[in-house]
Amino acid sequence: FKMKREPHLKVIAGQEHERGVAVAYGAEEFSTNWRAVIERKDIEIVDVCTPGNMHHPMVLAAIKAGKAVLCEKPLANTLAEAKEMAAAAAKAKVINGISQNYRRVPAIAYAKQLIDEGKLGRIYHFPATYLQDWIMDPEFPLVWRLDKKLAGSGAIGDLGAHVVDLARFLVGDVDWITAATETFIKERPLLDAVQTGGLGAKAAKKRGKVTVDDAFIAIARYKNGALGSFEGTRFAMGRRNYNRFEINGEKGTIAFDLERMNELEVFFGSDPAGLQGFRTIMVTEGVHPYISAWWPAGHIIGYEHTITNEIVDFVNAVVAGKPFTPNFADAVAVQAILDAIERSSVSKAWEKPAK
Amino acid sequence: FKMKREPHLKVIAGQEHERGVAVAYGAEEFSTNWRAVIERKDIEIVDVCTPGNMHHPMVLAAIKAGKAVLCEKPLANTLAEAKEMAAAAAKAKVINGISQNYRRVPAIAYAKQLIDEGKLGRIYHFPATYLQDWIMDPEFPLVWRLDKKLAGSGAIGDLGAHVVDLARFLVGDVDWITAATETFIKERPLLDAVQTGGLGAKAAKKRGKVTVDDAFIAIARYKNGALGSFEGTRFAMGRRNYNRFEINGEKGTIAFDLERMNELEVFFGSDPAGLQGFRTIMVTEGVHPYISAWWPAGHIIGYEHTITNEIVDFVNAVVAGKPFTPNFADAVAVQAILDAIERSSVSKAWEKPAK
Amino acid sequence: FKMKREPHLKVIAGQEHERGVAVAYGAEEFSTNWRAVIERKDIEIVDVCTPGNMHHPMVLAAIKAGKAVLCEKPLANTLAEAKEMAAAAAKAKVINGISQNYRRVPAIAYAKQLIDEGKLGRIYHFPATYLQDWIMDPEFPLVWRLDKKLAGSGAIGDLGAHVVDLARFLVGDVDWITAATETFIKERPLLDAVQTGGLGAKAAKKRGKVTVDDAFIAIARYKNGALGSFEGTRFAMGRRNYNRFEINGEKGTIAFDLERMNELEVFFGSDPAGLQGFRTIMVTEGVHPYISAWWPAGHIIGYEHTITNEIVDFVNAVVAGKPFTPNFADAVAVQAILDAIERSSVSKAWEKPAK
Amino acid sequence: FKMKREPHLKVIAGQEHERGVAVAYGAEEFSTNWRAVIERKDIEIVDVCTPGNMHHPMVLAAIKAGKAVLCEKPLANTLAEAKEMAAAAAKAKVINGISQNYRRVPAIAYAKQLIDEGKLGRIYHFPATYLQDWIMDPEFPLVWRLDKKLAGSGAIGDLGAHVVDLARFLVGDVDWITAATETFIKERPLLDAVQTGGLGAKAAKKRGKVTVDDAFIAIARYKNGALGSFEGTRFAMGRRNYNRFEINGEKGTIAFDLERMNELEVFFGSDPAGLQGFRTIMVTEGVHPYISAWWPAGHIIGYEHTITNEIVDFVNAVVAGKPFTPNFADAVAVQAILDAIERSSVSKAWEKPAK
Repeated sequence: FKMKREPHLKVIAGQEHERGVAVAYGAEEFSTNWRAVIERKDIEIVDVCTPGNMHHPMVLAAIKAGKAVLCEKPLANTLAEAKEMAAAAAKAKVINGISQNYRRVPAIAYAKQLIDEGKLGRIYHFPATYLQDWIMDPEFPLVWRLDKKLAGSGAIGDLGAHVVDLARFLVGDVDWITAATETFIKERPLLDAVQTGGLGAKAAKKRGKVTVDDAFIAIARYKNGALGSFEGTRFAMGRRNYNRFEINGEKGTIAFDLERMNELEVFFGSDPAGLQGFRTIMVTEGVHPYISAWWPAGHIIGYEHTITNEIVDFVNAVVAGKPFTPNFADAVAVQAILDAIERSSVSKAWEKPAK
Repeated sequence: FKMKREPHLKVIAGQEHERGVAVAYGAEEFSTNWRAVIERKDIEIVDVCTPGNMHHPMVLAAIKAGKAVLCEKPLANTLAEAKEMAAAAAKAKVINGISQNYRRVPAIAYAKQLIDEGKLGRIYHFPATYLQDWIMDPEFPLVWRLDKKLAGSGAIGDLGAHVVDLARFLVGDVDWITAATETFIKERPLLDAVQTGGLGAKAAKKRGKVTVDDAFIAIARYKNGALGSFEGTRFAMGRRNYNRFEINGEKGTIAFDLERMNELEVFFGSDPAGLQGFRTIMVTEGVHPYISAWWPAGHIIGYEHTITNEIVDFVNAVVAGKPFTPNFADAVAVQAILDAIERSSVSKAWEKPAK
Repeated sequence: FKMKREPHLKVIAGQEHERGVAVAYGAEEFSTNWRAVIERKDIEIVDVCTPGNMHHPMVLAAIKAGKAVLCEKPLANTLAEAKEMAAAAAKAKVINGISQNYRRVPAIAYAKQLIDEGKLGRIYHFPATYLQDWIMDPEFPLVWRLDKKLAGSGAIGDLGAHVVDLARFLVGDVDWITAATETFIKERPLLDAVQTGGLGAKAAKKRGKVTVDDAFIAIARYKNGALGSFEGTRFAMGRRNYNRFEINGEKGTIAFDLERMNELEVFFGSDPAGLQGFRTIMVTEGVHPYISAWWPAGHIIGYEHTITNEIVDFVNAVVAGKPFTPNFADAVAVQAILDAIERSSVSKAWEKPAK
Repeated sequence: FKMKREPHLKVIAGQEHERGVAVAYGAEEFSTNWRAVIERKDIEIVDVCTPGNMHHPMVLAAIKAGKAVLCEKPLANTLAEAKEMAAAAAKAKVINGISQNYRRVPAIAYAKQLIDEGKLGRIYHFPATYLQDWIMDPEFPLVWRLDKKLAGSGAIGDLGAHVVDLARFLVGDVDWITAATETFIKERPLLDAVQTGGLGAKAAKKRGKVTVDDAFIAIARYKNGALGSFEGTRFAMGRRNYNRFEINGEKGTIAFDLERMNELEVFFGSDPAGLQGFRTIMVTEGVHPYISAWWPAGHIIGYEHTITNEIVDFVNAVVAGKPFTPNFADAVAVQAILDAIERSSVSKAWEKPAK
């Protein structure tokens, strides 16, 4: 695991007041004209890190300019836009990627390797949860993430996007979905009121409606016959960033918890009677994915290196002229599943992800 | 926590070939005539431990004879029979109980106490799983538990009955249910074939259809606004008896795992910033429910004592002439929810438990 | 694992005011004359459960009467008495045992089996700790266990006896010892003062000297070349009954924690690269020692069953006329090591256990 | 937590064949003349990362040139040299630091904060272990770390230096030490033989003597009355980098494990009865030391950031002209304790660290 060519952070494009970040992040230049930057001949890779509503124009411009492009999740704010972007990238044959850094957690990459090697056999179950607790205070204000117009959805898009991408990565395509959502705190202080007037009596009166889900649960049937569930919530007190899943296969089980992201629990039915048990593997050894570039065994890596691993893989894909995964087509497939979750929560019926 | 009067195991009623159990279990007598035993004047308590199809006649006979009656779960093989039994018990005002021993795990009893004291506040989530792996071998034979006529259902009735009872105990009444079930191994060797012919070529041909679910997942909406899930399976390799649930409330979270049944994990949002974290409480101290009768702190109790605790509570209820919980009415409510899970898995729609 | 003949609790011998225990424990008779009981022809087994100072006369009387005898630890209050008792038992060829129930924790019995099968290879390390916290309050009174005349020693005898017996069971004979002890709270309220006067001003003045150790640490060199440590304390806040040890061998490692006594952690260097990790074995399966008599896999047993397992093994030894381990000779060897710990803490030099 | 001035990596000094590292690490220049570099006016900080035998001349030169100097552990290969260096730094009043990055693990820094705030009260116990397993294969060659002339000692210097520094940081000064060491594999293949001839028959004959300890155990008495132990080994199969300690105080207990370095376990005796238990704190929140510069709660940091935290603290100390800890005087104190461990293992008596 090695970077094949060293990339240079040439330009950061942003708004005038963001000029400082160029220095902070070590970019050679700063620009307020993103279109001009994308068209420059000395730019090979465009990394789109803006809010979701700007992904569509920027990504299309980068594709048009023939640049390799990596985009933050979600690819777009609507499924239609996402499909358009994926089609454009495919047609232009530019190398494209969606940032789903969890796939580059060494323990998850290793889980994928074990599954591909047939170590689990046929997969029966994939229960996956992503629990957080950052908006449990009813006086937490109505930030943009709680406004459907700006954020699209709540826990579904924010937390669901991670677990659904992992489901496709580790288990396969989802066939049918049924789901429920809930908004526990239905009104919250307006952000302006909070920022200007504090939490005083007056401010408390100025409240707005929360228009996204606080939590969702979905049941998924996979095309390969597996049965799974997705649970995402921002109302699980004490679970700061608790992304846990389990994969039960005919030959064994794998379990993962993001808060202990350097560990993987595995169980193999082929272990001798009496000696069967869940092993806690410290995924920190040279033989594990990505680790050869990091520390000796037993020394853990941090969350940021899941992103570093991703960037190295993307740069290497560009250098080699080979496809990167997950790409825009993967992003569209994830968005179609999240869309089915939302539709099912309204229809109260099983829904199929759109093709 | 103390037994108020010492019970005597007067008679075990069974079939002729079971005569030996009376000695093994220390009963004073053995009888093959259960009706005669139930009517004896020196019998105060009837404990029904037979297969499900005999619960209905035996329990009704005990009620008619005015005896206190404790019945193994499920109360009956059909919801209709269960309702009839609950009604009869209520009318006759006999003390009645359904054996749901998990309520008497000290850690679960303590969880209930914390909830009742308001330590969690409003409950948002109750994800509950019960995972086992004892029929994963496709050559495991078609035992009675895999035959719908005899067993009623598969994981739903066997594992679901436990988690649904805990849901009612800890969270409250279920309002709506949606669910999916799956049978992963659809045909299995007939038991006779296996027993007589071994696993040879001929025997392998004699296969029968599995008519119950191997696994189920359900989403539940509770009357109090909580959102929950139930997952039960016999296909989770390595999970021998993994009954885990979590309760996320507005003030804190509780988590429990039956394989470490002397422990309870709790998180309180009221702990000071910096010092917040999940506590692993060894529920083995004198102040914890039931423990005063057992060991000093740090010495664990075994699975059987959840049943001992239940029996002591039942005997004490009889001595005091006071109601025992869970009773037949509770058993009916659980069965109505399991019934809704089954119906929903067929209708692919949200279903309400029958009243 | 099965009892070969059912024992009957014929007589409990005690003091007049203890008459009630006979009923409570289901004995057929009660007697205040222990000598007479020991000599009765219908008595085959004598179980000595009195305070330590009575072990010597009772055990010798039982041996003289030709009875099988099981004695609570420690065998005697002095090493000399213990040696006399072991010699008498050997000469009389009566079946004799010391109650060290931890050897019959299924997980520990399984650890022993793995070691005997060569699964760990040569043993390098055995760090063992036994931590408790029941006398941390400086106002906890000067009970008999804190008086050297009555208790012999503090943590050394009480906690050390367990870990040293396990060391001999699992690792082998100790060659040399060096140790330190500490008494953190040097004076405590006299028990009488506390009981009569409460914790008032007057009572507080009446204090006595603590004459035993609150804690000890020892380093041990084993005859087979292993290096180990023993730590025992009553001053480890939060550690109610924390008996944890690890065995590091040339082929693998085993770790055990009494608070999770149904689990055993094992690591094998022979596992394939990438898949190495500590396995948590639930020692609750039919293939594990003692478990065939208890529950299906995944259902845990409680502390008391370590004693039940011991009693069954002892009764079976008596029925078969075969030796039981650990016996009085083992008890003497343990006491010699504890004695070396005490001597070393005074001499500040390495000491050899007396032969 | 913020860097007060951004440092520039001006020059890396090394040997000719190391020229490549300057580019790899982003230094502006490379030099083979370390003395010249140290004397340059544009150099403010010297970071000594060479093998131990070069620390003495380099550090003295840096002090003479009036530069702030950070030195890798151990400060020197002998206690005498270390003392000379500490004295020179004190006299010259240059800012000096020894690299003990574990003090900047946020969880350990937080443990220190809790102790300083009095949350544990008087400290009774500090058992500390550092277990590894990288030389367990008897065919692992005789590298320089196994040669006393080059490495000074084995596990004592390598692993002991970490735990002894933490002991001084968290508990206080050591008063007396007694210790044992062991070399389990006494001869190993010579490195040359292995490198040239492989592990063939001939090479196997060319073996040399291992002259350092494979493992050590020490008992420590602290000046404040605490009792502790240090265990370090390279022969604990499966323990890749297992640095675990516990601090038992009169009000609570803290436990830490480097393999889960973002977590801290704490127990407080002041928690209400029934709710007492060990809390697992994810030390990843803004209120925890160093974390404000990293991620939102629940996202872990990696091993390298313990070093980043250290460098930032050191740079900030230089910018502010204020002392950094641990400094050379601390390094001398640690070395004196390690020296006492070595002496005790030979004298078989309690030894006092030299002043």
